[in-house]
Amino acid sequence: MAVDNLARNADSDVSATIDHLISATQSGMEAVNRLILSRSDSPVDMVPEIANHLIDAGGKRLRPMLTLASAALFGGANGNEIRFAAAVEFMHNATLLHDDVVDESDMRRGRPAARTIWGNQASVLVGDFLLGQAFLMMVESRDLDALGVLSRAAAVIAEGEVFQLAKAGDLSTTPEDYTKIIHAKTATLFEAATEVGAMAGGADALARKALAAYGCELGMAFQLVDDVLDYGGAGGVLGKNTGDDLREGKMTLPVILALESATGDERKTIEAVLGKPDAGQDAFEAVLAILNRYGTLKQTMAKAEHHAEAARAALSDVAPSLERDILFDVPEFCTSRAY
Amino acid sequence: MAVDNLARNADSDVSATIDHLISATQSGMEAVNRLILSRSDSPVDMVPEIANHLIDAGGKRLRPMLTLASAALFGGANGNEIRFAAAVEFMHNATLLHDDVVDESDMRRGRPAARTIWGNQASVLVGDFLLGQAFLMMVESRDLDALGVLSRAAAVIAEGEVFQLAKAGDLSTTPEDYTKIIHAKTATLFEAATEVGAMAGGADALARKALAAYGCELGMAFQLVDDVLDYGGAGGVLGKNTGDDLREGKMTLPVILALESATGDERKTIEAVLGKPDAGQDAFEAVLAILNRYGTLKQTMAKAEHHAEAARAALSDVAPSLERDILFDVPEFCTSRAY
Repeated sequence: MAVDNLARNADSDVSATIDHLISATQSGMEAVNRLILSRSDSPVDMVPEIANHLIDAGGKRLRPMLTLASAALFGGANGNEIRFAAAVEFMHNATLLHDDVVDESDMRRGRPAARTIWGNQASVLVGDFLLGQAFLMMVESRDLDALGVLSRAAAVIAEGEVFQLAKAGDLSTTPEDYTKIIHAKTATLFEAATEVGAMAGGADALARKALAAYGCELGMAFQLVDDVLDYGGAGGVLGKNTGDDLREGKMTLPVILALESATGDERKTIEAVLGKPDAGQDAFEAVLAILNRYGTLKQTMAKAEHHAEAARAALSDVAPSLERDILFDVPEFCTSRAY
Repeated sequence: MAVDNLARNADSDVSATIDHLISATQSGMEAVNRLILSRSDSPVDMVPEIANHLIDAGGKRLRPMLTLASAALFGGANGNEIRFAAAVEFMHNATLLHDDVVDESDMRRGRPAARTIWGNQASVLVGDFLLGQAFLMMVESRDLDALGVLSRAAAVIAEGEVFQLAKAGDLSTTPEDYTKIIHAKTATLFEAATEVGAMAGGADALARKALAAYGCELGMAFQLVDDVLDYGGAGGVLGKNTGDDLREGKMTLPVILALESATGDERKTIEAVLGKPDAGQDAFEAVLAILNRYGTLKQTMAKAEHHAEAARAALSDVAPSLERDILFDVPEFCTSRAY
């Protein structure tokens, strides 16, 4: 019930949900951005060129904002939240650089991907550099428990990406496989971002666990929505960036669920686009019609709403505050993008 | 003078120099190998498949042996030397996986490179996984100073690889550029390997510095020799694996020094192979003749011998012992490979 209400509310007041997070973390994010800039620098020109190309492109910097907000929730930020936030963003950017190579993507955040300008080779190596710098910032925090959280996340993310690659184009991929993949490749970093934020803020064990659960559920919702957006959102409307996942052979929930009900002919229609980078818009539109026929985009959104609700529920273990209200609104921002 | 003697001795007694290191670290290396195997495991099949493909291929595991021997030098190994040794080997293997993608290499350690079996994408991602696992093992050591050494190394190595990539095919690359590149991409990990070994062994600040210097100098010698071997060794003899560096556009010292003296025609002969993966053996043999004409392989070996001597000299700050004798012999093993 709450889910439906949120979905309806979203249309009327989408931007406000993230604005509170942005304004609450603004001064912290200025420090994070300074740290990001200084740690992307190198006498080897190509390093800051590539790093800044990606960093300048923006993106919402949702993960570092979540780290800062999670620290603020417990009042006692010790300075490490800035390092952790920058480290989390570096880990994220390293993953993006490597993902573009793996996915053979030409575009990233509305600009040419680094690999199309500087090549795959430089993208791999600058990704490695950012990962090294991320670990260095974590070490400077001298917080071994947080280091454990973040380094475990790095290994799990990579493992999830390998699993996703292994399942590429595999029509027998199950919803359970998909859940494992997005948990590893996306939810793990959101979870680490909020958990180390809570640690920097001085959260006790219970609150730390609550914030970890919040980040994990939020990350699940975020990825589910992202995968729906690749099919044009909950309404399944053809747009200029729709269909990339399917053309790359990526098995996401909307297509996995459709394959469960598809007729032989519909299956062939899906196979004609799956893993075919050059599949045209007509072919993709036929797939979209199948997804709409079986309502799998809406089913995927229902799952996203379920995780968004679980994220909010995780916060009930934390004392009410203005900061808690801000985090409470973020899941809605994530899901509302799809409507 | 000592250098010349060592070079001559090498022919007579090459294998013995590394045998002492192998036997002295044997039981420790069994523990390291167990840790490597268990930390390469994953429910995602492709992860252990690729990791074990590389690990089974062997290689000498020189770096982890150096970590163990550096710890043994100070008697008080605390168990972390096993973790550090495995972490160093994982960092090395992650670099190899990414290097093969960057260099577009088909072979590694006499077997098909992982990327030729599983593809570039899987090689990038499993490299990331190994790097994540390396950091996790370091965190488990709970030694923040050693963590700092190893994470700094990770960033410096990547930076050096980017610099090497930026200089690929660049005829104006200077010997100083080359020195910077091999210092970053190779010597840094040798330095980290021996430094964290010394730390695990309980070395004081002076001895720790000595072991770091030893590893750094040894790494410089190792890479110089490797670059000479790519031209068939100090004698410059055509063999089945010679010429890869030049065909990949890699500017190493033998060719940099030759370009300083080369005539216009000789320069053209070098350019005909530089960065040309398909350049034939005749074309490469013509380059080899130029290198032999100007004696640049021997000049490069002289520089390697100089670093080998500096590595031995660094050990003079450490009290004499059987363990010190073992480390003392390793630089000779490295240089003797080229004769």
